[in-house]
Amino acid sequence: MSPTTPPPHPPEGLPRARSLGLGWGVLPPGRDNAITDVPGVRVGHRTLWRGEAVRTGVTAILPHGEGMFHRKVAAATQVLNGFGKSVGLMQVEELGQLETPLLLTNTFGVAACTEALIRHAIREEPRIGRELSTANPVVLECNDGYLNDIQAMAVTPDDAAAALACATENGMASGAVGAGTGMSCFGLKGGIGTASRRLAIGDMAFCLGALVLANFGTPGDLRLPDGRRVEVPNAVAAERGSVIVVLATDVPLEHRQLRRVAARAGTGIAWTGSFWGHGSGDIGVAFSTAEHLPHEPAAPLLPRHVLAEGLMDLLFRATAEATAEAVMDAMLAADSTTGFRGHRRLSLREVLARG
Amino acid sequence: MSPTTPPPHPPEGLPRARSLGLGWGVLPPGRDNAITDVPGVRVGHRTLWRGEAVRTGVTAILPHGEGMFHRKVAAATQVLNGFGKSVGLMQVEELGQLETPLLLTNTFGVAACTEALIRHAIREEPRIGRELSTANPVVLECNDGYLNDIQAMAVTPDDAAAALACATENGMASGAVGAGTGMSCFGLKGGIGTASRRLAIGDMAFCLGALVLANFGTPGDLRLPDGRRVEVPNAVAAERGSVIVVLATDVPLEHRQLRRVAARAGTGIAWTGSFWGHGSGDIGVAFSTAEHLPHEPAAPLLPRHVLAEGLMDLLFRATAEATAEAVMDAMLAADSTTGFRGHRRLSLREVLARG
Amino acid sequence: MSPTTPPPHPPEGLPRARSLGLGWGVLPPGRDNAITDVPGVRVGHRTLWRGEAVRTGVTAILPHGEGMFHRKVAAATQVLNGFGKSVGLMQVEELGQLETPLLLTNTFGVAACTEALIRHAIREEPRIGRELSTANPVVLECNDGYLNDIQAMAVTPDDAAAALACATENGMASGAVGAGTGMSCFGLKGGIGTASRRLAIGDMAFCLGALVLANFGTPGDLRLPDGRRVEVPNAVAAERGSVIVVLATDVPLEHRQLRRVAARAGTGIAWTGSFWGHGSGDIGVAFSTAEHLPHEPAAPLLPRHVLAEGLMDLLFRATAEATAEAVMDAMLAADSTTGFRGHRRLSLREVLARG
Amino acid sequence: MSPTTPPPHPPEGLPRARSLGLGWGVLPPGRDNAITDVPGVRVGHRTLWRGEAVRTGVTAILPHGEGMFHRKVAAATQVLNGFGKSVGLMQVEELGQLETPLLLTNTFGVAACTEALIRHAIREEPRIGRELSTANPVVLECNDGYLNDIQAMAVTPDDAAAALACATENGMASGAVGAGTGMSCFGLKGGIGTASRRLAIGDMAFCLGALVLANFGTPGDLRLPDGRRVEVPNAVAAERGSVIVVLATDVPLEHRQLRRVAARAGTGIAWTGSFWGHGSGDIGVAFSTAEHLPHEPAAPLLPRHVLAEGLMDLLFRATAEATAEAVMDAMLAADSTTGFRGHRRLSLREVLARG
Repeated sequence: MSPTTPPPHPPEGLPRARSLGLGWGVLPPGRDNAITDVPGVRVGHRTLWRGEAVRTGVTAILPHGEGMFHRKVAAATQVLNGFGKSVGLMQVEELGQLETPLLLTNTFGVAACTEALIRHAIREEPRIGRELSTANPVVLECNDGYLNDIQAMAVTPDDAAAALACATENGMASGAVGAGTGMSCFGLKGGIGTASRRLAIGDMAFCLGALVLANFGTPGDLRLPDGRRVEVPNAVAAERGSVIVVLATDVPLEHRQLRRVAARAGTGIAWTGSFWGHGSGDIGVAFSTAEHLPHEPAAPLLPRHVLAEGLMDLLFRATAEATAEAVMDAMLAADSTTGFRGHRRLSLREVLARG
Repeated sequence: MSPTTPPPHPPEGLPRARSLGLGWGVLPPGRDNAITDVPGVRVGHRTLWRGEAVRTGVTAILPHGEGMFHRKVAAATQVLNGFGKSVGLMQVEELGQLETPLLLTNTFGVAACTEALIRHAIREEPRIGRELSTANPVVLECNDGYLNDIQAMAVTPDDAAAALACATENGMASGAVGAGTGMSCFGLKGGIGTASRRLAIGDMAFCLGALVLANFGTPGDLRLPDGRRVEVPNAVAAERGSVIVVLATDVPLEHRQLRRVAARAGTGIAWTGSFWGHGSGDIGVAFSTAEHLPHEPAAPLLPRHVLAEGLMDLLFRATAEATAEAVMDAMLAADSTTGFRGHRRLSLREVLARG
Repeated sequence: MSPTTPPPHPPEGLPRARSLGLGWGVLPPGRDNAITDVPGVRVGHRTLWRGEAVRTGVTAILPHGEGMFHRKVAAATQVLNGFGKSVGLMQVEELGQLETPLLLTNTFGVAACTEALIRHAIREEPRIGRELSTANPVVLECNDGYLNDIQAMAVTPDDAAAALACATENGMASGAVGAGTGMSCFGLKGGIGTASRRLAIGDMAFCLGALVLANFGTPGDLRLPDGRRVEVPNAVAAERGSVIVVLATDVPLEHRQLRRVAARAGTGIAWTGSFWGHGSGDIGVAFSTAEHLPHEPAAPLLPRHVLAEGLMDLLFRATAEATAEAVMDAMLAADSTTGFRGHRRLSLREVLARG
Repeated sequence: MSPTTPPPHPPEGLPRARSLGLGWGVLPPGRDNAITDVPGVRVGHRTLWRGEAVRTGVTAILPHGEGMFHRKVAAATQVLNGFGKSVGLMQVEELGQLETPLLLTNTFGVAACTEALIRHAIREEPRIGRELSTANPVVLECNDGYLNDIQAMAVTPDDAAAALACATENGMASGAVGAGTGMSCFGLKGGIGTASRRLAIGDMAFCLGALVLANFGTPGDLRLPDGRRVEVPNAVAAERGSVIVVLATDVPLEHRQLRRVAARAGTGIAWTGSFWGHGSGDIGVAFSTAEHLPHEPAAPLLPRHVLAEGLMDLLFRATAEATAEAVMDAMLAADSTTGFRGHRRLSLREVLARG
């Protein structure tokens, strides 16, 4: 493959982790085993692949398809390791809600994505920042500087807008796409991965989905669900990684509960062999689509539902399982990639095929 | 007055801060200008005053009059300065609820009060720790070691039980009573103080009340609502203080909102001239009596109400005002007190009367 | 004054808060009563004042005059109220250090300032993001949307670069300059303010300085040091405010201690009458210039000095005093300003002069 | 074995996890593969085993053998899941130090251990609480209510004193001893476990040790280092668990760094198959013995050393490995135990022997 042509995504018939016997846990996956199994959630990618040096992009996650500013969703974050540059998390913690889509990108693309989310919000609601308060853009990032020339600052607000515009509820791609284009994981090729779990609560059916931007882990530390460790030939340690875990569910949860869910992203990451390395921005963001929160409520007291606390273990288990499996998905869906300065990351799929 | 006889509390016709022109803020106070204005909230004191050396006690705050384990209330905490030994706060933050009454005491009385709350909970629900989970006792403390011989460890589980048993919805005492018996504040006599604010939200009437255990502040730093600074004759700096601020409201709030309310305890404390000194355990605890949370819910999804976030400012203002005024109340209701080793703290009332 | 011409800053002979009898506290101020009294600290402003609608800008704070990436400084943050969009705080908390200058701007100028700091860092050290890790830009913001058309997104990376380029150790301007150009405070004109305190520790002399971007407070709540409340004629409540408090000191402190210092920004803000309103991003950032931390240390164990914990009260008092006085400075140095849509904020100086 | 006679500990020649091929990770263990490999660290147990109903105890961990109040050690905590009743953590976070030994016990033994630590501190320094500030007892707990009748409140201050008195630098016991006597883990017998790792930093040799009180995990979730899952015959789910992880090192670290280390306890716990269940108080405490911090420093500025941040990964890896292996140690050293109401937990050793 020429270095200036990105591989097609998703390759037809690409096997998922689960079909290769590399699923995690015991709960049943959702329809597509993807974050988009949570009703309303959309994902879009913008992949940038230019010459030898640009291997990066943007991934957009929309909790629903309507304007977020007037239909916010309950949300919370958890910083597992704060060596990262994500923006917007502080306000999510204070107010317990998301009011823009989430954008994922590379470390130096944060400013462009921030600007794009502000313009996106103003386009949907022109009173923002004038008659109404400002909007809080949430942008999450990892450093793809091994395969991508991050100094090129290739991501533009238009790229972010393109990722938002193409977001879809069906058939999201995994692997070396969008924000995952240039990422590395355990010394192999990382990227975007996803998984989901079905949740039976009482006689109701819910779903929890995870999307990861996997760019973490020391070569040799990867642990597969069956206990195998994976040797990485000629790996260069890349301890400037990060991992972003976005968790969506339609179970009604309050901020505190979502915060507990987001923390369990850390267990799923650890299951794959990580100890949350020093140089990594490891962050969980969880949101619930169960109820839309108006910007200008009609009444002073708002009715809500929350899950009985004793049932949280089901969500915690689903989070750990979906997170760990989403990492597998990211690594198995990604093709071997060559980029900046000829740096190369092998696909886990290829490494496993070699035996 | 003989040092072995405590002063009567509350002295008949004792003026409150407000009647002396020393109220804080603009919102109207509740019926008794006390935390017990919040419907259902009860307060009880056990005062220990023995010989020269024992000037201490226990103050109990009950969010309601029924068993707390099966009717928990939403709650949150905020640590302004963590140089303190309060117990139970961690679980309140994790689960967002109180499941025992609150006890206030001196630093070395925490163990006795913890034991008392466990026994109290088991008496109400004998399955605790056997068929059911354990209960989380919440005990808050300040160091009264200047007027009280804290090494005497005078507080017993029976004293704590006595404070719980005498808790009442009406006519709670302020000043040098209960846990406040031996406390100091700005080099003067501190103690227990309270205040409340009425809240009009839509066409509904609510209340927010504060109870403080005031044992903080450097002599000379006290600032009255009219801007006066209060000189303290011959003061000995007592930088081993603390302040506990308990906030109760019947407005329905979720944990995150209660946490925001608890933080504003810090503004009320600052209004009185404090900068949250190093040696002080400064803690806010806020709870809402609006909805009782069952230990064993009947259904997996629980209906709740929460206040529209844009209305939080009213609660923040009420918290700052009630906290600052409760400090005034503690100081003005307390009589001059002599205790351990002949140490003496003057009453603010006396100091102001001297002009 | 024509609305297209900004007022000269600082007006010759402009009185400071202290000379008007509106200083706060008891500790002696530093030479210029400014954050630049801390040796090495530099401040620069870029003021944008165009037509009727643009009243905004950028303020740069440099802990020292050398490259920050290779000479980081110990730092910590404290979020008093997280309704804000500042970036970079997460990594400061994880690693306890600043590695870029600080930029202050309006809410929608954050992306431009972020990009400017990245480019500034790469210019100083071209290996950033390639051979070395990325840099963590720290940008703090308030919403100046009442006097400024924030949707215009007037701030560019070049504006930020200009603020960095003109930073000086002497004669920093206060009032409606730089990031403070369009800010409001207690319904009056806010802006940039500063103050400092001299600290005698043992036989050594140190300094603590505060710089505030004051854009907070409800009209009528302002409390002067002498206890006066200030009425605001025809005020429009602007509860979309924020306040940023930057604290610099040459006392050697570890991250945890700096975090304790940053928290006391909240007491200084409260002293002026605030209860940290809901709609406000209230943030403290504290750094110590005592020791420069290398990016690539020569040895695995680094010698450091830290202040004995029992002496922290002096820093806490200095922080509260300097923060409160810096708010006075911001308001007294700012001229009455008319801006977007003819909105107008009166100067506190004028209001007090009217009596 | 009669239910009134505890098994001898440590059984002669008891195999450790490592010799059974169940060690975790790649770093070399210390001399005894125990927390006591960190020079100066002592551990003592008091085991309570009475009739059928009492299966509990106390474990003491001393950072060094001298008075802790005048020779404090740097420390930090991390709450992974806060459904627990440990005391003293708040002050450790504020001041970054331990000033008493650590005691571990059952949930309802916390009050007795708190009292014991206060009396222990006063015995060593009679001025505590009088001329000097109070001491901060740190007591950590898990709920052993399945095998132990926790309502019996069997632990007394004398038991805690006995654990402190017998603490030794050599030959600490693991398994169903001390606080671990009645604990359960993954539906099997839990208890006290330990492990250590040698750290080569530059040309210096350091050590990091972990001690766990393992009482967590859902039956069937246990994952061995070789990837095997362990079926538990007839297991009763015990989701009232907890896990305490105490980490000791002689590497000089500041509070913030110790806090990062304590967080990695969460990865080691996750490696063994946990997702930090809802009903569990999962807590990490880390301390450094490298430097003793005086209560009354001789000078205002204290010289310290800290590890270069870029080297933290070695400590993180050691923490994850030692924590996970300490869990194995706890389970493999513990014998099958019958207790309260005839409840029984099998030993992992026995389950594995059955194949």
